[in-house]
Amino acid sequence: MKTEDMIMISVDDHVVEPPDMFEQHLAPEWKAKAPKVSKLPGGADVWEFDGRKLPNIGLNAVVGRVPEQYGVEPTSYAQMRPGCWDIHERVRDMNANGVLASICFPSFTGFAGQLWNGLEDKQLARVMMQAYNDWHIDEWCGTYPGRFIPLMIPPIWDPKLMAEEVRRVAKKGCHAVSFTDNPTKVGFPSFHDPHWDPFWEACHDEGTVICIHIGSSSGMQFTSMDSPVDVMITTTPISIVNCAADLLWSPVLRKYPKLKIALSEGGIGWVPYFLERADYVYEHHAQWTHQDFGPGKKPSDVFREHMLTCFIDDAAGIRMRHEIGIDIINWECDYPHSDTTWPTAPERLAKSLEGVPDDEVHKMTWENVVRDYSFDPFAHRKREDCTVGALRAESPDVDMTLISAGGTPPAEDELRPVTAGDITRQLAGAFEAPTGA
Amino acid sequence: MKTEDMIMISVDDHVVEPPDMFEQHLAPEWKAKAPKVSKLPGGADVWEFDGRKLPNIGLNAVVGRVPEQYGVEPTSYAQMRPGCWDIHERVRDMNANGVLASICFPSFTGFAGQLWNGLEDKQLARVMMQAYNDWHIDEWCGTYPGRFIPLMIPPIWDPKLMAEEVRRVAKKGCHAVSFTDNPTKVGFPSFHDPHWDPFWEACHDEGTVICIHIGSSSGMQFTSMDSPVDVMITTTPISIVNCAADLLWSPVLRKYPKLKIALSEGGIGWVPYFLERADYVYEHHAQWTHQDFGPGKKPSDVFREHMLTCFIDDAAGIRMRHEIGIDIINWECDYPHSDTTWPTAPERLAKSLEGVPDDEVHKMTWENVVRDYSFDPFAHRKREDCTVGALRAESPDVDMTLISAGGTPPAEDELRPVTAGDITRQLAGAFEAPTGA
Repeated sequence: MKTEDMIMISVDDHVVEPPDMFEQHLAPEWKAKAPKVSKLPGGADVWEFDGRKLPNIGLNAVVGRVPEQYGVEPTSYAQMRPGCWDIHERVRDMNANGVLASICFPSFTGFAGQLWNGLEDKQLARVMMQAYNDWHIDEWCGTYPGRFIPLMIPPIWDPKLMAEEVRRVAKKGCHAVSFTDNPTKVGFPSFHDPHWDPFWEACHDEGTVICIHIGSSSGMQFTSMDSPVDVMITTTPISIVNCAADLLWSPVLRKYPKLKIALSEGGIGWVPYFLERADYVYEHHAQWTHQDFGPGKKPSDVFREHMLTCFIDDAAGIRMRHEIGIDIINWECDYPHSDTTWPTAPERLAKSLEGVPDDEVHKMTWENVVRDYSFDPFAHRKREDCTVGALRAESPDVDMTLISAGGTPPAEDELRPVTAGDITRQLAGAFEAPTGA
Repeated sequence: MKTEDMIMISVDDHVVEPPDMFEQHLAPEWKAKAPKVSKLPGGADVWEFDGRKLPNIGLNAVVGRVPEQYGVEPTSYAQMRPGCWDIHERVRDMNANGVLASICFPSFTGFAGQLWNGLEDKQLARVMMQAYNDWHIDEWCGTYPGRFIPLMIPPIWDPKLMAEEVRRVAKKGCHAVSFTDNPTKVGFPSFHDPHWDPFWEACHDEGTVICIHIGSSSGMQFTSMDSPVDVMITTTPISIVNCAADLLWSPVLRKYPKLKIALSEGGIGWVPYFLERADYVYEHHAQWTHQDFGPGKKPSDVFREHMLTCFIDDAAGIRMRHEIGIDIINWECDYPHSDTTWPTAPERLAKSLEGVPDDEVHKMTWENVVRDYSFDPFAHRKREDCTVGALRAESPDVDMTLISAGGTPPAEDELRPVTAGDITRQLAGAFEAPTGA
């Protein structure tokens, strides 16, 4: 297939929430309590809410910046590429990268809405959670119909409320919810507890995909504080195997036969190994661990019935696509994070897809997504206008010049490797930064 | 290749230390202080040492037992297959499984000799550490020349002493040392600290392979206490990726060009994904993290120059053998642990090697080991006597009947899945068991 003829839907991107996001989605009596953006003396923009300051972290919005200036310092909206937070510029950046549609994970709320959960006033939490979801669905995604697959944030403190919200937003076309890779690490019962049954049931009934992003429980994991930060960056995606195993051996998948779980930013190349390992464990241990997947079924079968995987650039995984399952592989762009392939995603993707038959390319780049997320982009634009070539032709004037906006280097000595400790100190400083008021 | 013509060397097995192990290897004045085996009222055998009781854990010695009776309860020598602890029976079990040679990891001392490190009296610690190594090299391995690749335990509390011991035992043919996957989790500086340089240097000089076994730092990792134990069993091997990344990005491999590190029981199927991921991180992040692998070199090149990988039964990994590196793959049997393929290892191995050319089979099953571990089995027996068929013919009378020795089930209710909590409680009980004195 020619690169320009591909159709590309990304199942993992991120939105840096814009300052005006709550304006249209709160009743007047709640507006004063909404999160507000203010500027620190150093120039960084932070969200102020509930007595806390929440910075936008550099590495979360580095797309289009000079690589030497990456880091985790707090940034201002002006330092970012506007596509991080401006919906019109985002769509132009998607066009320039040939990307038809995108799922955008939240930034300052935490992947599973931990920010709202932290509030003592659960009425306030619920109001803000719904305002966020309404903004995300109606405004961010709604401004460009057919270009975004909406993703709600759950009221994680109450499974019945989660079920209600899943059903409420499903009515307006949202069939994806962001959750955590390990609820026990954010203060709740595990996947193995019936606590979550109302939530699983609502997702099962509404055809809502549960998207579990890497790092969505306890954040960054380091081998030691003096380890190079590259260790953490290398291992974070594959750390989703713990969540995959946790769900695979839990009662959840076997209890809710149509439930779909997306392992967001988890990569795919490790999956054939993982499935063989799970089946081996079942064969060698089930007799004393009392696991039962039913007559003739293995853990790998249940994984393929429920799990959706995705990759940024994973040639080994593509070669092993039939050992993974061609119907459970999706592609992702990770805009505007540091691992993104923007603006040359089509060229990188085409390279790792060399020799793959067209029908298999289509499954992985868009058909699987359209089916599993109840998403129909062709209701809004003709199929021939959805290709890489057509989209790029729509926005021929996008400026790709790398942005140089300075930023504090994480390590004082610029020659030595940046460590986990450097990053941790820089982040701690960001959260402790004084306000400008 | 015919199954009976294969030559099989296992780079990961385990010895349950026999009660008489210290008898021949201590000066008279130290004998009273050596660990001694005693029997608990329930019948289990424990090592008594330094005021502690150390049980032999069921799952560590379940080979040949009825699978329904697996568990982590403390066991007696009488409940185990004698090959766990008796060198003559071990060799007969190897013959019955067609296995030419084996590397045996320690059991009650911890993989990196944590038992000795726990002693306040470091002279006593050193004496016991050396006695262990002398027993292991001269008696356990020395009784059957050419059948074992000896593996020393290091005096982990002192890198200079570690270097001395590496050089001392190298003189008697030991070119492998067991270490930990993360020194910070057992109370020491990380891989990134020059603290360990004397040790790395001695291994580099003596051609001693550093064997890092899964679970060799902080033991078992659980997602939650109510998770099925199968979650932990599934993910433990691949958790070695954290150690692999930690070493790959550390200065160690780049500083000691001939150093070899074995990722013992880590599996191989995830390696192609991991190498692509490491190279991707290098391409995307090195400019701000200040990593440098030298002109034209990538992390994957350095991995293949230094790391040795191994598999028990890993068909996906075998298919990807050239993406891993055919020269860094070894096979393992894991006798007498619960994942072992004894006594049908040749048949399982042959199945996953179907279609692999003979020269590649030889590399993975024995040639790589012989080269990297300075081991020459053919100095002791003719090559034609080293095959699966020849070895099985040497011990045609090994009794393979499954042993039923009872044992306490980990979960009280035998119908529900066994959880991490069940295992943890059973283990805690084992270590708190009263002595019979």
